[in-house]
Amino acid sequence: MIASHGKLASGFQSSLNILCGKGDEVEVIDAYVDDSDYTEKLNEFVAKIAEDEQGIIFTDIFGGSVNQKAVAAVVGSRKENVLIVSNTNLPLALTVILSAGDGPITLDDINEAIEESHPVVVPTALPSQEDEDDFF
Amino acid sequence: MIASHGKLASGFQSSLNILCGKGDEVEVIDAYVDDSDYTEKLNEFVAKIAEDEQGIIFTDIFGGSVNQKAVAAVVGSRKENVLIVSNTNLPLALTVILSAGDGPITLDDINEAIEESHPVVVPTALPSQEDEDDFF
Repeated sequence: MIASHGKLASGFQSSLNILCGKGDEVEVIDAYVDDSDYTEKLNEFVAKIAEDEQGIIFTDIFGGSVNQKAVAAVVGSRKENVLIVSNTNLPLALTVILSAGDGPITLDDINEAIEESHPVVVPTALPSQEDEDDFF
Repeated sequence: MIASHGKLASGFQSSLNILCGKGDEVEVIDAYVDDSDYTEKLNEFVAKIAEDEQGIIFTDIFGGSVNQKAVAAVVGSRKENVLIVSNTNLPLALTVILSAGDGPITLDDINEAIEESHPVVVPTALPSQEDEDDFF
C-alpha cells in the first residue's frame, strides 16, 4: 500500500503502471483530498495481511500525519509482519514491487533497496579546463 | 520544476499544496500520460532561468528516460545554474521549496536536504521480552 498527503500516492501508482505495469496491484490512499477518514482503510489493509505474508505501507514523509496514522494502525494490530517505509520515492517503490513476485520480502531486502534509491544530484557539468589539466 | 513518468509530478504538486501551499509555484511535467513530447517544456524551463537564478529539476528515477531528457536539456543549454535532482521524494521537495524564499539555493543546501530525506523503515515493534532482558 502507498499512503500520502494529496494525490502523491496515486501519482506513484500511475508511474508504476507506466514503468512496470504493476501499479494497480498496489492499494493507494490519497489523504486530505477530501474530508473522508482514511484510518479505516489503513486498518483494513493491516487486518487482511495473513501470518505468512509481508505487508508494506509506503508513506510520503517521516513524522507526517499519514505516517503517524500508519504507525498507529500497525502498532494497534500488534502484527510484526507489516513494515512501514517513509520518505518513499519511485526507485524504492519500483524495486520492492518488482521483487514482490520472488517470494517474501525481508527487512534486509528493503534496506538494500533503500541504499540504492537515495536521492542524488545528477552531474551535468562538462569537465572544466582545470579538470583536464589535472588529468595530464 | 518536477518531471516524472505518469502523474507522479502532479502528485508531488498536490501534496506540496496541502503541506505548505506552494505546490502551484512549481512547474510539473507528467510524462507519458499521452503522446505529447515534453522535451520542449524542459528546454523552455531551462531557457528562462536567468543568470542570477538557480533552477532545479526534480526527476523521478535516476537513469530513467525523463531524467535523461532533463540532463540533455541542461547539458545542451550549457547553463551551470540548473541542477537536476533524481530519485525525488516528498521531504526533499518540501525542504527545497520552503527554503526557496530564503535566497539562492546552493549545492550544499541540496546535499544537506538529501541527507535528511533518505527513505527509512519506521520502527513499529514494541520492545520484545529479549530486549528487556538485555536492558537489565
